[in-house]
Amino acid sequence: MEEHRLTKWNFEGNNGYDKINKASKINIRTVLQMLMDNLNQHENRPVVPLGHGDPSVFASFRTCSVAEDAIVDAVRSAKYNCYASHVGILPARRAVAEYLSSDLPYTLSEDDVYLTIGCAQAIHVILTVLANRPSANILLPRPGFPLYESYAASCNLEYRHYDLLPDRGWEVDLEAVEALSDENTVAIVIINPGNPCGSVFTSQHLEKIAETARKLRILVIADEVYDHLTFGSTPFVPMGVFGSIVPVVTLGAISKRWLVPGWRLGWLVTTDPNGILKISGLVKNIVEYLNITVDPPTFIQGALPQIINKTKDDFFSKTINTLREAADTCYNKIREIPCITCPNKPEGSMFVMVRLNVSLLDGIGDDVDFCLKLVKEESVIVLPGIAVGMKNWLRLTFAIEPSLLEDGLGRIKAFCLRHAKKQ
Amino acid sequence: MEEHRLTKWNFEGNNGYDKINKASKINIRTVLQMLMDNLNQHENRPVVPLGHGDPSVFASFRTCSVAEDAIVDAVRSAKYNCYASHVGILPARRAVAEYLSSDLPYTLSEDDVYLTIGCAQAIHVILTVLANRPSANILLPRPGFPLYESYAASCNLEYRHYDLLPDRGWEVDLEAVEALSDENTVAIVIINPGNPCGSVFTSQHLEKIAETARKLRILVIADEVYDHLTFGSTPFVPMGVFGSIVPVVTLGAISKRWLVPGWRLGWLVTTDPNGILKISGLVKNIVEYLNITVDPPTFIQGALPQIINKTKDDFFSKTINTLREAADTCYNKIREIPCITCPNKPEGSMFVMVRLNVSLLDGIGDDVDFCLKLVKEESVIVLPGIAVGMKNWLRLTFAIEPSLLEDGLGRIKAFCLRHAKKQ
Repeated sequence: MEEHRLTKWNFEGNNGYDKINKASKINIRTVLQMLMDNLNQHENRPVVPLGHGDPSVFASFRTCSVAEDAIVDAVRSAKYNCYASHVGILPARRAVAEYLSSDLPYTLSEDDVYLTIGCAQAIHVILTVLANRPSANILLPRPGFPLYESYAASCNLEYRHYDLLPDRGWEVDLEAVEALSDENTVAIVIINPGNPCGSVFTSQHLEKIAETARKLRILVIADEVYDHLTFGSTPFVPMGVFGSIVPVVTLGAISKRWLVPGWRLGWLVTTDPNGILKISGLVKNIVEYLNITVDPPTFIQGALPQIINKTKDDFFSKTINTLREAADTCYNKIREIPCITCPNKPEGSMFVMVRLNVSLLDGIGDDVDFCLKLVKEESVIVLPGIAVGMKNWLRLTFAIEPSLLEDGLGRIKAFCLRHAKKQ
Repeated sequence: MEEHRLTKWNFEGNNGYDKINKASKINIRTVLQMLMDNLNQHENRPVVPLGHGDPSVFASFRTCSVAEDAIVDAVRSAKYNCYASHVGILPARRAVAEYLSSDLPYTLSEDDVYLTIGCAQAIHVILTVLANRPSANILLPRPGFPLYESYAASCNLEYRHYDLLPDRGWEVDLEAVEALSDENTVAIVIINPGNPCGSVFTSQHLEKIAETARKLRILVIADEVYDHLTFGSTPFVPMGVFGSIVPVVTLGAISKRWLVPGWRLGWLVTTDPNGILKISGLVKNIVEYLNITVDPPTFIQGALPQIINKTKDDFFSKTINTLREAADTCYNKIREIPCITCPNKPEGSMFVMVRLNVSLLDGIGDDVDFCLKLVKEESVIVLPGIAVGMKNWLRLTFAIEPSLLEDGLGRIKAFCLRHAKKQ
């Protein structure tokens, strides 16, 4: 041991060059871990996890037996123990193509579909491929989903933030998009239904985004991992509907709608009826890059057609109803808390962004301070807005067991009242 | 459509800068696809796939029911639909630590184990982390496994090849290793049991590798994805046995021993009793990088303890016996073919490297030409040696259904006799 320390090893240190450290810091997991580390060990009440979106651990959000059966059948068949094609197995690609086509004015083929390890790998693939264009930059939403920033940093892709506007229902600030972009801007990312805002873009707004992107000659990356999880007055419309205006790369997964984020099955789909992405060489690069990336387990791919085709509507309706009630509870309870305001009632996804007015509180410096004290005193985990790009806001999920949600919101109210400035 | 073509899109082309294309070309999949494209469409005989190692599609190589049951139990429990920790779930990490410790002179803890998407992601993680050291280079075996070259190219890590010596049972040319390395050399990769050579390093040779690496102050990356798949006179010894001489990162998976490559569950393990990797900052970088990589599906992780702990020895013995007989068949049949020689009878893994003497053949230019004509005329797929770094050699797998193996080797013999130069 001593001798090992005396002589330096060649792999030690990195002279301050630490791309990994930089990329990994932009991370919700890291912030949540910091909060968890501040839990009061003597607390007897259950922890209320409003900081991240994973309802699958709660009884009200168990996946359907159809999905479980599909996995069991695939494993028992022993047909899927082998390696898969690097783009995904054909029946699974075909099932995704049919699934998405039913909401589009044109028909996707299996060749438009690439299977990925959750939506996360789909994000990673498209950003890495775009980073293969020198000096490229990409437009990301603020507030947003920090995995985009992480992956962009890890592959040296420059990113620029456009704002989502709370006073306009969290719509894209399209004027800012035009001002931000230049000839090296290759794409804009939109997340709809929205994480972290709980917003759902209208068809009219999506069309305007498409028109803007066409004008700027950039690709639209439509992160639709929360597709169909809408419960307000605005229905979900896929961006691919406007694929004839501008080429769209749609990212998705079974993670959210089927409540199985841990199954890690997603897709990257070219919703591009004019075939521009093929002509441009982007599709070639996607296929090449998939050649050297890891694949989703074959038997989960094998189960996908059965999962997609056999799931009954009542399973989806039940989830939507539970989410609608949870969103209502969340919105109404927050209205009772003076220092927190919610500009828009959530209509989709599993999240809501709320504004924190620290000037009404005693001894609370900012959103991070609020969350740290909240976890210590109330064992409620809430994500500080800074983690998604907005200081002195908070991101909450309402997709947890309803009784626990009420409990958690009650504790937030108690916390705020206790720390309220005396008049 | 017309209008889209008239104006350039910003994401088109890449000005010749194409790291992805370069990295994806170093690829067994690409070579095999080229061979498959040359199959004779009018052939009635079955294709004999000796080009890649995936026996799981054959009845003789079906995984055990214990493994299938473990997956089914994990899915049915509904406990693993959620996201996992970025380093892997604790019970699974603990199971791997115990599994590997049983062959080591010290005990690993769960903190030494990181779960990955097959061994492939483990390779990707360690190379990316090492590439985080500026100007770093790494030593790779020739012949080898081209995914190392691909991943190194994709993360800008320089690689240098050392030779495995056919006349010394495919042992590492340690003098060459010393000559190749410099102060920027951070690691050496060894693959044992050996892909593509079918060799198994003796304990004495492993110790010499460790001593050399210690002298050079470099890490040993021990790819042991074929661990325990040995059927000759040399037993499998993990490199970690010499972890007190030099820090070792061991890469592995359930893919090969359990015959489920498509399940994509692997691990990266620090077998480093002196804790040098922790002190050096490498472990910190591994954990940080895992924070921004995709995770193996949670329920497969959940199944891992049951897979590892409940699999009976008779399942392993059956595989070993089948592989031993297949290796014997392969070796004996090849001895009957004049233009092919096998320098060493395979003792491990699922592969053998054989030398092609093109001077004995009429109208065959090299190994690629041999393989292209073989697939056209005999529907037998064999990997040209150039794909693993050795021109005018061939890599064959013998891990296919025994009857099909005999058939395929017979067709290779017929092909060689038909193309033999007249004396």
